[in-house]
Amino acid sequence: MESVLKLISEQRCFDGRQLRFSHRSQVLDCDMVFSLYLPPQAVSTPVPLVTWLSGLTCTDENFVTKAGAQRYAAALGLAILAPDTSPRGEGVPDDEAAAYDLGLGAGFYVNASEAPWAAHYQMYDYVVAELPTLLRNSDLPLDFSRQAIFGHSMGGHGALIIGLRNPQTYAAIGAFAPIVAPGQCPWGTKALTAYLGEDSAAWRQWDARELILACNHQAAVPIRIDQGLADQFLDAQLKPQLLLDAAPEAYPLHYFAHEGYDHSYFFIASFVGEQLAFLNTHL
Amino acid sequence: MESVLKLISEQRCFDGRQLRFSHRSQVLDCDMVFSLYLPPQAVSTPVPLVTWLSGLTCTDENFVTKAGAQRYAAALGLAILAPDTSPRGEGVPDDEAAAYDLGLGAGFYVNASEAPWAAHYQMYDYVVAELPTLLRNSDLPLDFSRQAIFGHSMGGHGALIIGLRNPQTYAAIGAFAPIVAPGQCPWGTKALTAYLGEDSAAWRQWDARELILACNHQAAVPIRIDQGLADQFLDAQLKPQLLLDAAPEAYPLHYFAHEGYDHSYFFIASFVGEQLAFLNTHL
Repeated sequence: MESVLKLISEQRCFDGRQLRFSHRSQVLDCDMVFSLYLPPQAVSTPVPLVTWLSGLTCTDENFVTKAGAQRYAAALGLAILAPDTSPRGEGVPDDEAAAYDLGLGAGFYVNASEAPWAAHYQMYDYVVAELPTLLRNSDLPLDFSRQAIFGHSMGGHGALIIGLRNPQTYAAIGAFAPIVAPGQCPWGTKALTAYLGEDSAAWRQWDARELILACNHQAAVPIRIDQGLADQFLDAQLKPQLLLDAAPEAYPLHYFAHEGYDHSYFFIASFVGEQLAFLNTHL
Repeated sequence: MESVLKLISEQRCFDGRQLRFSHRSQVLDCDMVFSLYLPPQAVSTPVPLVTWLSGLTCTDENFVTKAGAQRYAAALGLAILAPDTSPRGEGVPDDEAAAYDLGLGAGFYVNASEAPWAAHYQMYDYVVAELPTLLRNSDLPLDFSRQAIFGHSMGGHGALIIGLRNPQTYAAIGAFAPIVAPGQCPWGTKALTAYLGEDSAAWRQWDARELILACNHQAAVPIRIDQGLADQFLDAQLKPQLLLDAAPEAYPLHYFAHEGYDHSYFFIASFVGEQLAFLNTHL
């Protein structure tokens, strides 16, 4: 079968390959681009797959160029998949005011039910189902029985909800400065209202705090959260304590607070090695 | 004395501080911005200073956000200074066609003698004299008796000529994919003709190959060059063999060719740890 993935760039990095692909997405009804790092070990054997979800305003490229993660992925033998953060292209609606926190670059990893978003903004299904299926149908050397997921800010929220809802797929979850309770912060309530409607009952399945309150202990996916204490969004948007308080006492939730670090990629770069090491222990 | 350096951002990174300053430059006759990474060791003791020079089109930010160098600088206890690549701002002339390889973003680390460039394009004096003097007059914890210099492409050329001409200041030189003989490649001849005039005799002091041919063995500054063999500019612009052939046999010039690597920051990130370790052995 001919692959539907079109390789658009390939660059050597830490003895592995930093790849970028374009493809048609059926669930998003648009053309999409994603990045994939294959470590040197992938030359001889299928490697575990770690999915990275980026935050507001990002594309697939921010993490790839700024986090310095390839060094650790090469040492650990991990592939890193970095999807885009929303559907893209002509015909895909954006926020009318082009706000950075709604529409393009701000898909929030949910399946929208409301107009005008529902026709394209199905990022949950894209990340959980369509993109992995496309990769399985390619000849890329990936071991889909060993997967983890992590992300930053909006993407930390995405990693938490996707990992918590799919414990059979993801062995561990990582998050940098995640939105842990989108139903209780301005970024989240704005996006969920637009994508899912006014009724907040429909938001629960997209809210990590609600999911962890309802989770099945037998299937608990280990979580590591890193949070900078100088993060400008900590108190108004991120509120990690809401997740810490909601998690059952026995839940394997590891929280690391870092004095002086902000919300930027300088923070992510400083701890991405520890995050990948954590995820790797569960793969 | 009040510092003339204005701190415009400070971000924690690998337990150190990624700083950005603005200041008035007398020699460039414009306002400038530079970046400085201070490792955690700088809290208690002055640290060696490594200057990084970027390539065409870059500002002070590319290396800082893409190379992943802070991790190694933090481990080794090195400060990294990243200046801009040309004068900037209103009144500073650019190439009439806004070409990427002349004018803004393309100062080539020379002192221009020709109109309209000479009034602002004095990047050699800026990097070698004015910027270090500004730093010495600040209260930053830097040990100016231990300095090295490295760079990429046009900045590799800059590191080579600045290091070779100032062996008393720089203990070692590093270069990724440098232009080693600007008098013998299209990028170099275009820039040197514009900045220095048609007479190529005036180019010699700005040409690493010419400098190494004439160098004093007693003052030889050790050099490490890393070059990707899939670099799209290797044959037409970079030509490292011209430097290897010109260097006296006993010169401490270490050349590493890397199969499959291109000209990008993925290449730089892959070997910046080895470059910094090399520079550090001479500090």
